[in-house]
Amino acid sequence: MKYKHSDKLNERAYCTAKKMAGLGKSIGVETSESPCGALLIDAGIESHGSPEAGRLFSEACLGGTASVRIDMMNLGNISIPSVFVTVNEPVRGCMAAQYAGWTIKSENDSSYFAMGSGPARALYGAEDIFRDIGCTERADVAVIALETRKFPPDGALGYIAESCGVKTENLAVLMAPTASITGCVQVAARIVETGLHKLHELGFSIKNVTAGYGSAPIAPVASSDGAAIGWTNDGILYGGTAWYTVNCEDDDIKRILPELPAEASRDYGTPFYDLLRRYDWDFYKIDPLLFSPAVVYISSAKSGNTYRAGAINAALLEKEWFGSV
Amino acid sequence: MKYKHSDKLNERAYCTAKKMAGLGKSIGVETSESPCGALLIDAGIESHGSPEAGRLFSEACLGGTASVRIDMMNLGNISIPSVFVTVNEPVRGCMAAQYAGWTIKSENDSSYFAMGSGPARALYGAEDIFRDIGCTERADVAVIALETRKFPPDGALGYIAESCGVKTENLAVLMAPTASITGCVQVAARIVETGLHKLHELGFSIKNVTAGYGSAPIAPVASSDGAAIGWTNDGILYGGTAWYTVNCEDDDIKRILPELPAEASRDYGTPFYDLLRRYDWDFYKIDPLLFSPAVVYISSAKSGNTYRAGAINAALLEKEWFGSV
Amino acid sequence: MKYKHSDKLNERAYCTAKKMAGLGKSIGVETSESPCGALLIDAGIESHGSPEAGRLFSEACLGGTASVRIDMMNLGNISIPSVFVTVNEPVRGCMAAQYAGWTIKSENDSSYFAMGSGPARALYGAEDIFRDIGCTERADVAVIALETRKFPPDGALGYIAESCGVKTENLAVLMAPTASITGCVQVAARIVETGLHKLHELGFSIKNVTAGYGSAPIAPVASSDGAAIGWTNDGILYGGTAWYTVNCEDDDIKRILPELPAEASRDYGTPFYDLLRRYDWDFYKIDPLLFSPAVVYISSAKSGNTYRAGAINAALLEKEWFGSV
Repeated sequence: MKYKHSDKLNERAYCTAKKMAGLGKSIGVETSESPCGALLIDAGIESHGSPEAGRLFSEACLGGTASVRIDMMNLGNISIPSVFVTVNEPVRGCMAAQYAGWTIKSENDSSYFAMGSGPARALYGAEDIFRDIGCTERADVAVIALETRKFPPDGALGYIAESCGVKTENLAVLMAPTASITGCVQVAARIVETGLHKLHELGFSIKNVTAGYGSAPIAPVASSDGAAIGWTNDGILYGGTAWYTVNCEDDDIKRILPELPAEASRDYGTPFYDLLRRYDWDFYKIDPLLFSPAVVYISSAKSGNTYRAGAINAALLEKEWFGSV
Repeated sequence: MKYKHSDKLNERAYCTAKKMAGLGKSIGVETSESPCGALLIDAGIESHGSPEAGRLFSEACLGGTASVRIDMMNLGNISIPSVFVTVNEPVRGCMAAQYAGWTIKSENDSSYFAMGSGPARALYGAEDIFRDIGCTERADVAVIALETRKFPPDGALGYIAESCGVKTENLAVLMAPTASITGCVQVAARIVETGLHKLHELGFSIKNVTAGYGSAPIAPVASSDGAAIGWTNDGILYGGTAWYTVNCEDDDIKRILPELPAEASRDYGTPFYDLLRRYDWDFYKIDPLLFSPAVVYISSAKSGNTYRAGAINAALLEKEWFGSV
Repeated sequence: MKYKHSDKLNERAYCTAKKMAGLGKSIGVETSESPCGALLIDAGIESHGSPEAGRLFSEACLGGTASVRIDMMNLGNISIPSVFVTVNEPVRGCMAAQYAGWTIKSENDSSYFAMGSGPARALYGAEDIFRDIGCTERADVAVIALETRKFPPDGALGYIAESCGVKTENLAVLMAPTASITGCVQVAARIVETGLHKLHELGFSIKNVTAGYGSAPIAPVASSDGAAIGWTNDGILYGGTAWYTVNCEDDDIKRILPELPAEASRDYGTPFYDLLRRYDWDFYKIDPLLFSPAVVYISSAKSGNTYRAGAINAALLEKEWFGSV
């Protein structure tokens, strides 16, 4: 655990990845080595996964900048497992690490495609967002997280390692399909990231965000990855709450507040899975304003004023997740 | 802490037991060695015990398969300390370890009697339930938990160690009376186990349960162990919620659902302490259907459907625990 | 971390202080050495601080006797980050360590003034309260916590180290201003201490308190330290709940119960910041009965009876903190 107290996102995440590997079967995780030497941590493909695997997956994905805890919350008259996330370095943790912004394709295997998240992105650093936030880093180890049901081929692993400037044997890959316990936990744990990304999209200077807190229900495991993509997103859009402490003028908050919560979107109110089918699985046709927590608080340490927008929509989730209750 | 990441229930629990011994007075725990060399961890007999001792007691009892956290919950209009439990290996953790299924008697001292729980049961493996669940193991160390106000005599310790195939000096014994802070915490932490055991009793294939979550109020410490047995059980039966993620057909759930919560029992509604006195302390006369959480959710990852049965009965607990508020 | 499992408050706190120093920038903490060799841990003066820094600050301040967790709570119709505290050794942790009872002045620099809290107080041991509680200790290391926006001069550090009987290079100083994330967390984490101190003031034998639990909202960061002192105190007085498990007769509880919660004070209902200005910043003019949680539960393990006094006043906090929501 020599990297435990490192300042590098990848070194801290690597410690967590190794811890997951060490816990292995006791958290439903199976570890293997790819032909090219990368450490593959299967947390829900051929393995069971578990709540704890999801928790550690999320903390690694956040580059060790955050605490993720599993809890129980009330949603209407339902009690449901949920996550509670506290982020100490919101921009580095959520934007330079956790955001799923890296499109991974295999050089030699055109059939492989996955969205990469995790601190490896800060080593790669070529996504547009890094021009705004900086936060790139150099490290000897890299950790990438893939929401996938397929083990990445060596072509993809080589591409990731090379892009990160690390040896393939120093690359750790966290994998879990959406329709798994691990997958449902790790998407819910994106609650603070989702709101921060929306703030960025609205032109708010996210470098002024000094802390983030969030809670979101853990979607029940759906019967297919497609449905699970819908349900886990709905958990954030209709059941998630994020709270940001910021250092800025009130006017900077008031300007973007009405647009901030998910309900500001024209696509709000239609289950995400229906939208995906309506738009033929083209994420880019979905109104980007939709991707945001149900409720967002912005608390200015400069003025002492706290603002809120949005509301929990328990009815939509109760209907979608608990139709049979 | 060499066993920390072991796959063996007893090795993981042994780490936690040693940690409790190390923390000692700071968590209200007193450690001693029995004449035969066993490690005796008194967490509430001659010691004070504490919430943290109860938390660690529970995690050891679950063989390191779970996280136990102390929290505050609302019960009617009362705020009460509670536990929240997340179980990564429900069958191994709850059934092969935490369930209090081993009757411990001293060979040479007929006056000693206690129900044994904890992972030592998986080494012993002679209880009927192991025929259904498997999950037995071999290890060099053993951890047993006793809900008791009496230190076990060497006869009993020798019997346990021998049954487990370990040397007595490699046996760790966690002890706390019911009417202690530790005792009240560790019983509340049986919320996931209680529902899983009921599922098993109803003929549900518990091997299909892949994760468990649960919350239950920590009963106030009662004025006698007898009353405490009643109160701590009532905390689960009337105030506990368990959530299970399963892989099975909906029909398998629907078949047992009506019988699942505590309210399905003919003995429901009478405080547990009154039942004990009514049936002259013969646990076997109490309707076995009573032993279950107040509320149970079953969420099928196969169908994506989630079912619920039962309800919290805050009124009964408010009357029993807070008559003087 | 050689002191981790020590029985000494200062040794345990020192481990936590070193951990904070190790985490450094990743939790918004900057570490330096004073000219006289003391370890200065800035968790919010020139550094950002963070929720995790506040959590660790609080656990150190409690001398390792407690768990502090960050959570989300409902306050009226607001969701707000909050702390939840579990104390295993209430008298030692809250009274001999966390209570801010030591007036620190610089010998050579009359302009420096701060209230000292943390386990260093148990080494100093000269405050009146130690005559009632005992709990003094000797140790090679000392940890003091200062709610301040100024680095203490060497004169003050020398005074502290000498009073504690430690070398200045073995003194760790935790610092955060009230109007910082760390500051807001660490004051909220005083919820159990505040009620215990009030119990002591009312003549209740606090040695009979065997465990404490508490929750309180984390006040939003106010725009000045003065306002922050008001807001963080109001979080406890109007939004905090404490629960104590005690070993005593019911009569001992009933005698003090009506006077116990904050609402028993003549100054209740006026925001704390207004009181400070009304009394010209003379804390001693504020009714001492005011300093108490909004709600207090006392649960007697002797009788099995639990008593409650007080109520959450969400309206006052909603108006004060969320006037702009």
